[in-house]
Amino acid sequence: MNDSRISGQVRIVGAGLLGASIGLALRSKGVDTIVHDASPGALSLAIDYGAGRAAAAGDAPGLIVVAVPPDQTATVVAQELGSFPDALVTDVASVKGLPLAELRAADADISRYVGSHPLAGRERGGAISARADLFVGRPWVIATGNGESTRSVGVIEDLVLDLDAIPVLMTAEEHDRSVALVSHVPQVIATILAKQLSAGSERALSLTGQGLRDTTRIAASDPQLWIQILAANSPTVVDILRSFRDDLDRFISTLDQPAAQGARRAIAEMLAAGNDGVARLPGKHGQDRRFSRLVVMVDDTPGELARLLAEIGDAGINLEDLRLEHSPGTLVGLAEISVLPEVEAALVSELESRGWRIAEAWK
Amino acid sequence: MNDSRISGQVRIVGAGLLGASIGLALRSKGVDTIVHDASPGALSLAIDYGAGRAAAAGDAPGLIVVAVPPDQTATVVAQELGSFPDALVTDVASVKGLPLAELRAADADISRYVGSHPLAGRERGGAISARADLFVGRPWVIATGNGESTRSVGVIEDLVLDLDAIPVLMTAEEHDRSVALVSHVPQVIATILAKQLSAGSERALSLTGQGLRDTTRIAASDPQLWIQILAANSPTVVDILRSFRDDLDRFISTLDQPAAQGARRAIAEMLAAGNDGVARLPGKHGQDRRFSRLVVMVDDTPGELARLLAEIGDAGINLEDLRLEHSPGTLVGLAEISVLPEVEAALVSELESRGWRIAEAWK
Repeated sequence: MNDSRISGQVRIVGAGLLGASIGLALRSKGVDTIVHDASPGALSLAIDYGAGRAAAAGDAPGLIVVAVPPDQTATVVAQELGSFPDALVTDVASVKGLPLAELRAADADISRYVGSHPLAGRERGGAISARADLFVGRPWVIATGNGESTRSVGVIEDLVLDLDAIPVLMTAEEHDRSVALVSHVPQVIATILAKQLSAGSERALSLTGQGLRDTTRIAASDPQLWIQILAANSPTVVDILRSFRDDLDRFISTLDQPAAQGARRAIAEMLAAGNDGVARLPGKHGQDRRFSRLVVMVDDTPGELARLLAEIGDAGINLEDLRLEHSPGTLVGLAEISVLPEVEAALVSELESRGWRIAEAWK
Repeated sequence: MNDSRISGQVRIVGAGLLGASIGLALRSKGVDTIVHDASPGALSLAIDYGAGRAAAAGDAPGLIVVAVPPDQTATVVAQELGSFPDALVTDVASVKGLPLAELRAADADISRYVGSHPLAGRERGGAISARADLFVGRPWVIATGNGESTRSVGVIEDLVLDLDAIPVLMTAEEHDRSVALVSHVPQVIATILAKQLSAGSERALSLTGQGLRDTTRIAASDPQLWIQILAANSPTVVDILRSFRDDLDRFISTLDQPAAQGARRAIAEMLAAGNDGVARLPGKHGQDRRFSRLVVMVDDTPGELARLLAEIGDAGINLEDLRLEHSPGTLVGLAEISVLPEVEAALVSELESRGWRIAEAWK
């Protein structure tokens, strides 16, 4: 069966994590998916893995997805535009401005090119790590504003929707600024923080908790990939790193004189600014200020939580976010519920009328 | 029944997250646990929550655990030493050198004081966040080298073992150096990184992935607590922050000239040093190792989540943790479920047989 929005053949060039994952997802929707890789070994692995079939004479793909390393992206996109004069070509590189500039410089037919970037990945690369659900619920940027046709953008949107991802339309410039902030700078900072651990004793590191693990997790990422990403987006990344350094200098000079007039207040303000920054993250549990939160006390059994949610459903109220605090040893569990502010009052009275105990919402 | 190593009464002063969690765990082992707090409201919440009983005339605790904010620790420890002349007193403050110095300056009887520090916590405080298993498998430093008796250290070790934590003996100085590296500096860096997000547009932040969430998670921590911790350990924290800044300066100047001779190699070496730092962390990085996690796609409509939980309940499987992640722009929510590893396989097949779609893209 074919339940995809995309019609016709899709050719994927580059059989790594992203290319193979796209192939797995498209084939699961019945799309005739061709996969190609300069490395015969990588190609056969991806085909064995179910990411698609090998290219054959007479292939006429309507859409080509280039999923090669960033510094090869423009070259391969230009080749594919030349080899398939009727195909629309996209790529999935993490930087969008540089490939576009390189394609222009190479005089490629960019009227058939629409760059894109799925915000998804794993620390492990290669087809072996591929999964059809890699993109589920993740944003996928489609770079617009370069004279591409509405129809072309629509085809890429269909691809993104077929992969259960969320299309986000941005110019290449807005994309590169955005990912510098939410992805490239965090990578650099996590890397430098992790580097400091080389000075630590085994005994010191034995005290490591989840906080340090989380803060440094992405520092385990592949250097070869990240050199390319950082170099391709360096001006924007450097701007934000300089702002970070200014704040760090301020923190150091303040903390160096903790007893000085106003020092504690200055530290408190910086810590609060960090709170505010985290609070801006979308869907971040317990932080999203678009929603009102309540904490309902629930007997610590699965049946009780199901009953609570069923009764919220009966009231026609939709949960925006929910978390169960299962606290072994306590007499109650806590269900923290986020709802749209306009329904909070109705939910409170509904729950209280049904005998639920509502604890004070988190600050 | 009483299956604890600790005998006699334990008095806990300070009914916040740590004090209430210690109380929950000791009571589950049958220890006569007295909880006290300067705030009647906090005290009654902790008692309602099961953390212990109120103090009574004739109480004769053999061990007192002071779990108050760092800047009150020395004062309260001195008071307790005075009020209970036969009791051994410990504290759980995140810094060990300063309270000891303050107790010496106050001429307290430190022969009955052994400082300690459980490496456990949560972004949220208060008894309402307490869990009896907060300390399971976590290191718990016992500060030695101040003329305390072997018997006293043994009593604190018994407390730590009763809470299923791991005793680690260190001097106060080694402790403070170690936590600066693995806890205090990561807090500052996460805070400054999160602060940079204030410059980001909503659209930019909509591209946020798990990497940024993890890297900034601890920046949501309580400023009032962290001012005290950072001020109390500032010289050591500042030393490491200066080393971080030197590396950041190097990164910025290199990335500012990415085409310069040797620039890419220098970036690669810094990224590799980050890899090496993460590799030094004990254990697997990632989520709570006590639980297996899976992500189930749930139609974002009233009642769907209730149906999922009801069906998990029907399967006789108990949730350890549950979170609904709202996916902006989609009608699908992602329910992140944590269960004991031994039931994961059964849960997956149960849910799939009932038609639920299981994603793991964020693992």
